[in-house]
Amino acid sequence: MENGSERWRVRVNERLNKTSETTIRGTLAKINRNLNKDDPRPTVPLGHGDPSTFPCFRTTPVAEDAIVDAVRSAKFNSYVPSVGILPARRAIADYLSRDLPYALSSDDVYLALGCGQAIEVILTVLACPGANILLPRPGFPYYEARAEYLQLEVRHFDLNPEKGWEVDLESVEALADENTAAIVIINPGNPCGSVYTHQHLKKIAETATKLGILVIADEVYHHLTFGRNPFVPMGAFGSIVPVITLGSISKRWLVPGWRLGWLVTCDPNGILRKLGVVECITGCMEMASDPTTFIQGAIPHIIEKSGEDFFSKTIDTLRVAAYTCYDRIKEIPCIICPNKPEGSMFVMVKLDISSLEDINDDAEFCLKLAKEESVVVLPGAAVGMRNWLRITFAIDCSALEDGLERINVFCQRHAKKK
Amino acid sequence: MENGSERWRVRVNERLNKTSETTIRGTLAKINRNLNKDDPRPTVPLGHGDPSTFPCFRTTPVAEDAIVDAVRSAKFNSYVPSVGILPARRAIADYLSRDLPYALSSDDVYLALGCGQAIEVILTVLACPGANILLPRPGFPYYEARAEYLQLEVRHFDLNPEKGWEVDLESVEALADENTAAIVIINPGNPCGSVYTHQHLKKIAETATKLGILVIADEVYHHLTFGRNPFVPMGAFGSIVPVITLGSISKRWLVPGWRLGWLVTCDPNGILRKLGVVECITGCMEMASDPTTFIQGAIPHIIEKSGEDFFSKTIDTLRVAAYTCYDRIKEIPCIICPNKPEGSMFVMVKLDISSLEDINDDAEFCLKLAKEESVVVLPGAAVGMRNWLRITFAIDCSALEDGLERINVFCQRHAKKK
Ligand SMILES: Cc1ncc(COP(=O)(O)O)c(C=O)c1O
Ligand SMILES: Cc1ncc(COP(=O)(O)O)c(C=O)c1O
Repeated sequence: MENGSERWRVRVNERLNKTSETTIRGTLAKINRNLNKDDPRPTVPLGHGDPSTFPCFRTTPVAEDAIVDAVRSAKFNSYVPSVGILPARRAIADYLSRDLPYALSSDDVYLALGCGQAIEVILTVLACPGANILLPRPGFPYYEARAEYLQLEVRHFDLNPEKGWEVDLESVEALADENTAAIVIINPGNPCGSVYTHQHLKKIAETATKLGILVIADEVYHHLTFGRNPFVPMGAFGSIVPVITLGSISKRWLVPGWRLGWLVTCDPNGILRKLGVVECITGCMEMASDPTTFIQGAIPHIIEKSGEDFFSKTIDTLRVAAYTCYDRIKEIPCIICPNKPEGSMFVMVKLDISSLEDINDDAEFCLKLAKEESVVVLPGAAVGMRNWLRITFAIDCSALEDGLERINVFCQRHAKKK
Repeated sequence: MENGSERWRVRVNERLNKTSETTIRGTLAKINRNLNKDDPRPTVPLGHGDPSTFPCFRTTPVAEDAIVDAVRSAKFNSYVPSVGILPARRAIADYLSRDLPYALSSDDVYLALGCGQAIEVILTVLACPGANILLPRPGFPYYEARAEYLQLEVRHFDLNPEKGWEVDLESVEALADENTAAIVIINPGNPCGSVYTHQHLKKIAETATKLGILVIADEVYHHLTFGRNPFVPMGAFGSIVPVITLGSISKRWLVPGWRLGWLVTCDPNGILRKLGVVECITGCMEMASDPTTFIQGAIPHIIEKSGEDFFSKTIDTLRVAAYTCYDRIKEIPCIICPNKPEGSMFVMVKLDISSLEDINDDAEFCLKLAKEESVVVLPGAAVGMRNWLRITFAIDCSALEDGLERINVFCQRHAKKK
């Protein structure tokens, strides 16, 4: 058969075909396909962590101005070194050093395409035959997807909902072996909305150093805290254990589409250099795509000129949203929220499946909720916890109230009749 | 030893450590380190393909305006689908269809972080155990570096300098076997400055279809032609063989730092879908970083509003530069230029090593040239041809004349005395 597929020799990389099943984007796409197009009500998106489309979560004009100036200057149209341009690296080093007991140098900072690419880089660097990495459960599934693609073995440790989603350090010790390269800590937490204390972070650092493994600190939600605990960067314990901090402007500046993040070595003892990790990061960056040059060029201004007023307005809006969410959920039958969220944009809630009439698990809950109420939430299974849900509260407040009310109605309709 | 590297279990991915030896960036960095800081003359950069810092190669204000408008609108700050936003995909489909005998659909277009990420994606898709790919020699070494990282076997076919750097199709037939997935064609050519005729491209397509392999058409220099042959996209032969076209705005719009490119399936018979290639591209994109959203948002305006006057000014400037370069090189002893460049930003010239006194190869030539004359050119070995040089003519004209004059002086000084 002329032009039939038989005559073509091409085979494809099968490791790529499963990705959409494991990513949050893939899960949400499936739920979105279940929405009822005839429902005249607006869809309430409580599934993903991107508030930037809501006017109350618009970024500061300072950031927009910085981009416009950089574009207009025509100084930032060219290719640049793969680790990023020096003024941007220095600005980020200074910015992060404000919260640390020592000063980072610009050489510690590698610019990345959002925190996402920073994750890709560090996992690629650590992906040796036989190596394994410790990931939190629940967690952020991009780590699992990327590790699987890299054939880097994943071992999960639990976060404890009874204890503010703290790391179960005993299980960490039990999991690690001589092939363990690192432990990943996401703080402030996605999906849990948790914020770890200074004391807990220190204990994590001590456990890691005892085990001889690195700490990868995903701080993409840095400074998005509104509860009891202030944000403490893991890098504060860099003299106890080498810390690789990952972050971006995506969340704090509310511009996830700008794709500017960083990988930072917080390692005052220079251990990462001795281990060859630094050289390997550079090698990986050399082959990877770079963030847009004029956004790199804008970074010093974005960081220097963004005022406390902008940050505190975001925090205030998030706090109101988080607490509204927590209060409304308490009124909903069949859903339990063990912890009031204190940071990030999410809260994990538990489904009481036994009290639901015709719903067997979190996936079914979410599919039916989308169809019947045009509300999208993420099944807990997508972040590693079956029969839980991850709810985003970082949306416009009235839409949030509306969405939670619809979930309430939905649960009442599906609750077992007593 | 407390905090010595012995106590840490970490090993690193050794496949990453060799990258800087194989990339153009790495080679140029080495040459740049050899520059003489005491030379009061400005360095003449004839090594890399990035004219965007020169005022005569500034992008059109239309493109800058489109970015500014997109940023100011605040409509493009969020995460977007991993294949790109629809208006941008449609604009690129329409733009490329202008030169094709059939119309592309927006589904054929996948946005990427420059042509570089498009290369990464397609090589990743084709990287199956045992598979191989045919690459041109001389070529663009990012293909080799990425393929090596992916453990995708590379087989080189030669471009013939005696025949306008055309593909030696006989050697292609001899190289391909049942594990060959694709052949890569770079047209207009880097590093050769060649532009293939309609007839030669058709022959390539016919050879590929006979062999049952795909064509990957790297057209990052699309429309940058100023000689006899007009630019013909490989996709014109998409009904003979499935073509995957890679491109970007980097070169034609002179904004390599903006990081916006595409991977496009030019395949009116739908073979790539049947082969699972389309699904696999989507899976790969799902895990990869996306181009900045507001640049995606600006693309329809950039494409629609950029006028012919801007494009033809660039072409005129490039033509003058290319011909100046060709004429000056004819006057230089020990360097032979077999082909007048007709496209892209480069020309390949041959070193007559036997007529040089104290220079043994292209690498030594480039290191000494940097040290003695503050001129940077790329050793041919970096693109697969030892004892050749790749010279970039896409720089400011007076700097170009200056640089070529210095090369002339250098060659006269190092030529064997008769
Ligand atoms: C825990 C975590 N890490 C990383 C990322 C990716 O961040 P970025 O958008 O900066 O790539 C996200 C995004 O939601 C996240 O929640
Ligand atoms: C042949 C070729 N392909 C791809 C690229 C990468 O293009 P981009 O800057 O759009 O990623 C280049 C850049 O010089 C190139 O010369």
